[in-house]
Amino acid sequence: MGAAVPSAAPPSEAVPSAEVREVELHELTAPIAKELDASSDRMIRELDSDSEAVREVLGSVHRYRGKRLRAANVLLVGRACEGPGIGRGLSAEHIKIAAIVELIHVATLVHDDVLDRAEVRRRTPTVNARHGNQAAVLLGDWIYARAFGISTKMESQTCSRVLADVTATICRGEIEQCRAKYNFDLTEEEYLRAIDAKTAELYAAACLLGAHYAGASDALAQAMERFGRKLGLAFQIVDDCLDLDGSEDVVGKSLGTDIAEGKITLPIIDLLRRVDSGGRRRLEAIFRDESDPRRVATLAREFDLAASLHLSYQTAERLRLEAVSELDALPASRARDCLRGAADYVLRRRW
Amino acid sequence: MGAAVPSAAPPSEAVPSAEVREVELHELTAPIAKELDASSDRMIRELDSDSEAVREVLGSVHRYRGKRLRAANVLLVGRACEGPGIGRGLSAEHIKIAAIVELIHVATLVHDDVLDRAEVRRRTPTVNARHGNQAAVLLGDWIYARAFGISTKMESQTCSRVLADVTATICRGEIEQCRAKYNFDLTEEEYLRAIDAKTAELYAAACLLGAHYAGASDALAQAMERFGRKLGLAFQIVDDCLDLDGSEDVVGKSLGTDIAEGKITLPIIDLLRRVDSGGRRRLEAIFRDESDPRRVATLAREFDLAASLHLSYQTAERLRLEAVSELDALPASRARDCLRGAADYVLRRRW
Repeated sequence: MGAAVPSAAPPSEAVPSAEVREVELHELTAPIAKELDASSDRMIRELDSDSEAVREVLGSVHRYRGKRLRAANVLLVGRACEGPGIGRGLSAEHIKIAAIVELIHVATLVHDDVLDRAEVRRRTPTVNARHGNQAAVLLGDWIYARAFGISTKMESQTCSRVLADVTATICRGEIEQCRAKYNFDLTEEEYLRAIDAKTAELYAAACLLGAHYAGASDALAQAMERFGRKLGLAFQIVDDCLDLDGSEDVVGKSLGTDIAEGKITLPIIDLLRRVDSGGRRRLEAIFRDESDPRRVATLAREFDLAASLHLSYQTAERLRLEAVSELDALPASRARDCLRGAADYVLRRRW
Repeated sequence: MGAAVPSAAPPSEAVPSAEVREVELHELTAPIAKELDASSDRMIRELDSDSEAVREVLGSVHRYRGKRLRAANVLLVGRACEGPGIGRGLSAEHIKIAAIVELIHVATLVHDDVLDRAEVRRRTPTVNARHGNQAAVLLGDWIYARAFGISTKMESQTCSRVLADVTATICRGEIEQCRAKYNFDLTEEEYLRAIDAKTAELYAAACLLGAHYAGASDALAQAMERFGRKLGLAFQIVDDCLDLDGSEDVVGKSLGTDIAEGKITLPIIDLLRRVDSGGRRRLEAIFRDESDPRRVATLAREFDLAASLHLSYQTAERLRLEAVSELDALPASRARDCLRGAADYVLRRRW
């Protein structure tokens, strides 16, 4: 469907281009390349089992790791917290935390795909598509447990404590979003509260733990937590825009799933603000019309979806700027530059 | 359907009656009544949230606590591990562990009900029946996270470590059982391996932790772990029998769900051993006949289900005796008597 929808407001036009640099993911992770690979290896080792049945259901779930932005945040923040009066930088614990954070993310993706009835992720069939919802629910639980397993074997309990709370918060956010389906009265505030819980919380924890395990001060760790939270909010807003704006080929997963699931996201909230009661009834009808397989295209044809997407990208850009300002708490370093670059990337990405 | 099916082999007749005493649940928990209530209070406090959406979905999920056998095991073992050269008995940590173990159990029940498409549990509609599968999956995840949250705040990491591994094992067992659906070649050995993981592991951990946190020796803790494991196996075999043999009114949940879900349990494995190829084809057909709402009754009419149930109850009884023999490692005490009584109860229960 992506090809049929005119790309409404690509971020490179929607946001001040001077602020945005062309950077590739591998450049952003150069200062932590070795550690990022080590954390991926650890993650892949955990996504294995003696049980034939578990191995079958796992399939190629390790490919879900995708961009590894959360792991990179743990490691870049750890690396950036290095120097006299700042912290001792990266340690072996950071590699474990990076693996744990990605495992938790993968577990939520496996469950999300059940909830969204998604059939494709990262260009491969989802666990639910391959083995049914039951196996996918259980596999997600299993992956959560494996992630906790690593953290409980670390010397300090901080990681376990933070991540148990984070996981509960993620679920709370997902439950709130689930209960808000087809709620066309959802406010921007309620939307932000839900995505803060379901997405930004894990980004915030990744950055907090990266600083904490480098021995950074509480003040610096909290600045990093704020950086992660704003970045996570921006990330989710862009994600929600891409579901209405991306190209299925590029994004590598099903598009328009939010409409199909009745999920009210920021561009839709904005759209609803700018239509009369007739337009609102029509928009609700499009959401509920399961016979239309190209509802994003229908929406874009009948409404000024481009303008709403543009505004949402602007909100994300504002959050990115707020995030980046928190990086001033760090001393100048290549890792800090990469954190800034990662924030740019979150806005520029098309997948 | 229970009323229509002649009660095939009630345990009181199937097992040596001399070994079985009439004991009520509240008598069994008398030495730990205060602590059991405290752990329930703790559990109920954890099953609450500031989020209106979470509270709605939670509903009366705290009523799932049911018989609290797992919590009682933690506390009775702790109480029994008291005395010179044995251990220091119950502590405040035991109450937390009992709450955690019950929370993990409740989380698995919430997910089980999604997997089994069950509509009633403990005489109330299930979470999935009330709020749909999505909310139920997320709520189960949330409850798991709350359980881990308590354990990560305990002083020692032992509980967290054990429970992370236990949770992964439970999921592994459920995945194995899920993959074995409609596998009419399932062996008794494979069945026992799956229920050992999905049920007995949590009983074993409850008893192990009860002993460990009382400061018992490793040898005693391991004897208690074996007691819990055998008891858990017996419990699950009886559970699987009751699904084919109980009365829906008494059990308080839907019956015949295993057949409806294609789950091959011990009495069915035995039945398959004793029929010819024609009987096997007929049994498979009954399993797959979704138009028959009373498949347990059909099965009981066409096959000697009673004999297979009788044999399965005998297997459970053998496991009970093996479990009880482990209690010899404990000094004589009222708590030890209650553990023995709990093992009797697992065989005698009709729900």
